[in-house]
Amino acid sequence: MRVVMRDDATLKQIGQVITLIENKGYQPFVVKDDKVTTICVPSIQDEKLFDEVMQIQGVKEALPFSKPYRLVSREFNASDTVIDVGDVPVGGKEIVLMAGPCAVESKEQLFTTAESVKKAGAKILRGGAFKPRTSPYSFQGLKEEGLKLLREAGREFDLKIVTEIVSPGDVELIAGYADILQVGARNMQNFSLLEQLGKIAKPVLLKRGMMCTIEEMLMSAEYIAAGGNPNVILCERGIRTFERHMRNTLDISAVPALKELSHLPIIVDPSHASGNDRYVPALALAGIAAGADGLIIEVHSCREEALCDGKQSLEPETFAALVEQLKRVAAAVNRKL
Amino acid sequence: MRVVMRDDATLKQIGQVITLIENKGYQPFVVKDDKVTTICVPSIQDEKLFDEVMQIQGVKEALPFSKPYRLVSREFNASDTVIDVGDVPVGGKEIVLMAGPCAVESKEQLFTTAESVKKAGAKILRGGAFKPRTSPYSFQGLKEEGLKLLREAGREFDLKIVTEIVSPGDVELIAGYADILQVGARNMQNFSLLEQLGKIAKPVLLKRGMMCTIEEMLMSAEYIAAGGNPNVILCERGIRTFERHMRNTLDISAVPALKELSHLPIIVDPSHASGNDRYVPALALAGIAAGADGLIIEVHSCREEALCDGKQSLEPETFAALVEQLKRVAAAVNRKL
Amino acid sequence: MRVVMRDDATLKQIGQVITLIENKGYQPFVVKDDKVTTICVPSIQDEKLFDEVMQIQGVKEALPFSKPYRLVSREFNASDTVIDVGDVPVGGKEIVLMAGPCAVESKEQLFTTAESVKKAGAKILRGGAFKPRTSPYSFQGLKEEGLKLLREAGREFDLKIVTEIVSPGDVELIAGYADILQVGARNMQNFSLLEQLGKIAKPVLLKRGMMCTIEEMLMSAEYIAAGGNPNVILCERGIRTFERHMRNTLDISAVPALKELSHLPIIVDPSHASGNDRYVPALALAGIAAGADGLIIEVHSCREEALCDGKQSLEPETFAALVEQLKRVAAAVNRKL
Amino acid sequence: MRVVMRDDATLKQIGQVITLIENKGYQPFVVKDDKVTTICVPSIQDEKLFDEVMQIQGVKEALPFSKPYRLVSREFNASDTVIDVGDVPVGGKEIVLMAGPCAVESKEQLFTTAESVKKAGAKILRGGAFKPRTSPYSFQGLKEEGLKLLREAGREFDLKIVTEIVSPGDVELIAGYADILQVGARNMQNFSLLEQLGKIAKPVLLKRGMMCTIEEMLMSAEYIAAGGNPNVILCERGIRTFERHMRNTLDISAVPALKELSHLPIIVDPSHASGNDRYVPALALAGIAAGADGLIIEVHSCREEALCDGKQSLEPETFAALVEQLKRVAAAVNRKL
Repeated sequence: MRVVMRDDATLKQIGQVITLIENKGYQPFVVKDDKVTTICVPSIQDEKLFDEVMQIQGVKEALPFSKPYRLVSREFNASDTVIDVGDVPVGGKEIVLMAGPCAVESKEQLFTTAESVKKAGAKILRGGAFKPRTSPYSFQGLKEEGLKLLREAGREFDLKIVTEIVSPGDVELIAGYADILQVGARNMQNFSLLEQLGKIAKPVLLKRGMMCTIEEMLMSAEYIAAGGNPNVILCERGIRTFERHMRNTLDISAVPALKELSHLPIIVDPSHASGNDRYVPALALAGIAAGADGLIIEVHSCREEALCDGKQSLEPETFAALVEQLKRVAAAVNRKL
Repeated sequence: MRVVMRDDATLKQIGQVITLIENKGYQPFVVKDDKVTTICVPSIQDEKLFDEVMQIQGVKEALPFSKPYRLVSREFNASDTVIDVGDVPVGGKEIVLMAGPCAVESKEQLFTTAESVKKAGAKILRGGAFKPRTSPYSFQGLKEEGLKLLREAGREFDLKIVTEIVSPGDVELIAGYADILQVGARNMQNFSLLEQLGKIAKPVLLKRGMMCTIEEMLMSAEYIAAGGNPNVILCERGIRTFERHMRNTLDISAVPALKELSHLPIIVDPSHASGNDRYVPALALAGIAAGADGLIIEVHSCREEALCDGKQSLEPETFAALVEQLKRVAAAVNRKL
Repeated sequence: MRVVMRDDATLKQIGQVITLIENKGYQPFVVKDDKVTTICVPSIQDEKLFDEVMQIQGVKEALPFSKPYRLVSREFNASDTVIDVGDVPVGGKEIVLMAGPCAVESKEQLFTTAESVKKAGAKILRGGAFKPRTSPYSFQGLKEEGLKLLREAGREFDLKIVTEIVSPGDVELIAGYADILQVGARNMQNFSLLEQLGKIAKPVLLKRGMMCTIEEMLMSAEYIAAGGNPNVILCERGIRTFERHMRNTLDISAVPALKELSHLPIIVDPSHASGNDRYVPALALAGIAAGADGLIIEVHSCREEALCDGKQSLEPETFAALVEQLKRVAAAVNRKL
Repeated sequence: MRVVMRDDATLKQIGQVITLIENKGYQPFVVKDDKVTTICVPSIQDEKLFDEVMQIQGVKEALPFSKPYRLVSREFNASDTVIDVGDVPVGGKEIVLMAGPCAVESKEQLFTTAESVKKAGAKILRGGAFKPRTSPYSFQGLKEEGLKLLREAGREFDLKIVTEIVSPGDVELIAGYADILQVGARNMQNFSLLEQLGKIAKPVLLKRGMMCTIEEMLMSAEYIAAGGNPNVILCERGIRTFERHMRNTLDISAVPALKELSHLPIIVDPSHASGNDRYVPALALAGIAAGADGLIIEVHSCREEALCDGKQSLEPETFAALVEQLKRVAAAVNRKL
């Protein structure tokens, strides 16, 4: 149920609605834009409650949700959500660039790359410390050592940090170092992990599973929001199709679709989508033109030596040149970069 | 085999190579850019011919092809091919817009739409007269009557005409009316049709089959080129995947991939890819940002009454507004519109 | 509309219904099982006709179709259709085996293979004379020469012939030699071809397009039936998915689904589905266990020398051994072989 | 590296190899069939070790692995692995049936169903206590209460228990109740979970992710085996494709493929593959015909009231009738049931 208050509803009336809902044992979620306050009770069977709520002065309407996702839906919040990652807003007029190596490998590698992406215009440093690898025999990441390097690099170059979490048990550890916790594609429906991420306040970057529909992605975001953490950034990173020329197929149409269905920010990952640095610039430009709020791009100061995914990483100079193109396309679609 | 001549090769030397190849019973294809002449013999088993060709003065190198597509490959022609559709170039610096209704339904419908798309900036009018429909009981198009209306509209509003061909027996008929013959997605591997299209000189717009790989698409283009018609325009129009929120999934990465692998122009069809007019603008903008040479977009002067695909057609005003955005994005990636 | 006559309806009453329908300008299709006669008018907009038909004595009910396919649907015909290919029934209790080489290459190859598959239990010889190849430079088949060899081999070893047709212009030619005309996966939605096949009486083997849905397959069968040829044999041959360990993914569930939705026979092609002779036996056994009416299997007397698809062809001895296993599984599911 | 000992190798020689490997800091895995002992060191970079091992008497050969999966590969173990679930062998000549409701809902529901599947021939009872649901608002399972009911039902009807685990933190809890721990499709690449399951000895039923390749599935099995738990049962349960008539597409060819590539048992889940009880029998029969070692089938004593997945559950009588058919097909392919 979502309860839309009238423009002239008083705080007291809003409070009455909330109290009524809480008294029935439900948890209300409230969103307020310039004028309108909306109160959402995501899961409700009690038909009578609709009538009871309508009795309260100041209530304009009480409606069921038309979709299985609720807190993350446009129905709940018609305005775009802007998530503040420290002083870096994600989802507003300004395009945000997240860049860095696939995995944190060494201080030198990380710092060189961090410096170059900062200089080029990135605001957020990416880098994996816990790596979900298909093979148990592959490099699994530097773990906490990697987190420490990330924090150090973030401080040194004034970059926020985004890094992946792979286990529900690591939430506290990683939240202690990172500004954004990333859920990788393979964990998009790891519901135990999503539940833990609902309990913290830090922003979560939720990557689309390569086998998951747009609706399933929103349901996974709903898990985090329903747990109490509304700070979810969606990320389209390519889906698995019959076409194998690229590693995955970037579903560019997910960008306008998610913008229509949800108020959450959506960014694009052209690196994992293509798995090929030669195609990254075209996909990055397409992403911004299609309406994405940002990009997450792999950049490695020494591609040939990368312990994972070197083939898809951009050289720092290529990244810098791409940012100049991105600025022009961003301006062409009335965004800033 | 492709034979690359030296920059200073004489016409006589080039002629010697061609004569040698012809004497062996092969058909040579020749391409010449500013300086370099390349002679291609697409299919050759005769290992000795490599040596014999190398004996001729002026030959720089004789190499096998690394890919199964040859005439349409970058290996054969490093320069972008520009196809002249009358006075409208496709594949050059200028972005070309093709627009119009899914099917030709009536003179009024076609003319109203044609006038509006011309005014907005389209150079080529699309419209189906022979419609490949999934059901034998659906509207199959006005056939020759539709072709006549297209030609009339083209003359009235100074627009070139692109229309679909579905049967090898219709090549002459349709080539008599249209400026570009379109091969639809379901016919991309209709090799009998492709063979007939290799025998004419008119440009062919080859749509990617919704189940076909990028390599298979280039092989189908090769069929037309090998038959003698080098004027092939490639068209990405969405592939079939598990995601059903959109009708198909626009494979935006096919744009940079085809640009890398082939010298042919590539355009994007956001209308069939999404099947939803609300997503067409985002996909159109993404297509140009990714490097496409043009767009083919469905526009209908009266969407509600469309006999097919009304849901994906743009209103004329929406199309006009989109063109303004496209101009800005085209400029941002150093193209003209 | 389908008109179901009462069990005691007279021929005169049936005739009245047919006359009424014809007078309205529609073509009626009639099916009769033990007791019930059903008259189908596949495409009808005229709501009044339902009422008028119901006025006729002997009419039990007049109902709209619930699916877009009609003549091929279970709604029209609740009994399984048995198609007689000469004296070989397809779709009855007996499992039918079609076997032979991918392409007809030479008399010796064809005759040796034909002899072996006949001996093992096949009733129908497969072999391609017109080959739809992805590359214009690949072997395209022996064409009419191949058809002649097929007819000769069929007569020599008392085998019916199934061979592929790729162009609407070839219907007459191929129907002059073959007992079953095969529509390959890439032509499943070649509607010009399907229309021509609707005009003949010979059975058509319709292969599922590798990215076509079950419903689309039935719509393509409907094209042939609506044209006047009810003798369509459906063939599941694998669809294209992300999994590439096999060439295609055999959609085994299409067998029970098509049996439920349609009265047409359905056979399975394990050779093209897997592209790998090692997996053919398991898929063939699974096909029969799942309820298929037959199999079409590639067998080559000399796999290593095959001009196409050698990797997926069985050796004659392997085929013979497989037939023994198939007999046991057929018996286990109450079928004969 | 895999070290194959000679048939006449002594225990002492085998011990020498193991000691050498351990001294180098690697963990050796040993498998022994009738005659041959093979020692596997899954991940090894040290080229010299090959030579050193070859110096030891009794070593026949030391070879690298050709595939990224090693402990679960046929290269390591040519014999089929039989996993003993108490006194129920999985992977031997006898087909094993696992059956029961999707979710444990109540004692009555579980016990009624358990009794009926036991009577029909099932040896293992399935039932979810921890349910991974797409929506946070759906029924999430009875959790430990459900586990207790499962154990009780297992004891009452002499059935082993298989139930799903969704979080690495629950391994100990669930292993305390269940005989087999199931990893669901969405968690196939939840590597944290796989790592924990490598630390126990209980059998793990590993379901294929709906968009995971056969190779990725084997890599996930390798995670568990590399952790020290060799008791992995593979389960094909349908993959996600463009076809939506069924919920998923059962990849029947995965059965012979996995049998070829791995020594682990493989079972088929026709219920989740089809999502439709009408198709379950055909898919179950196909699975056994294709060579599967068992089936896991949803059965619900009262389908209409099921809290999840009722549509795909069989009625107990339908299940019993299916088992009779399965017995005949099992016999036809030389298996027992």
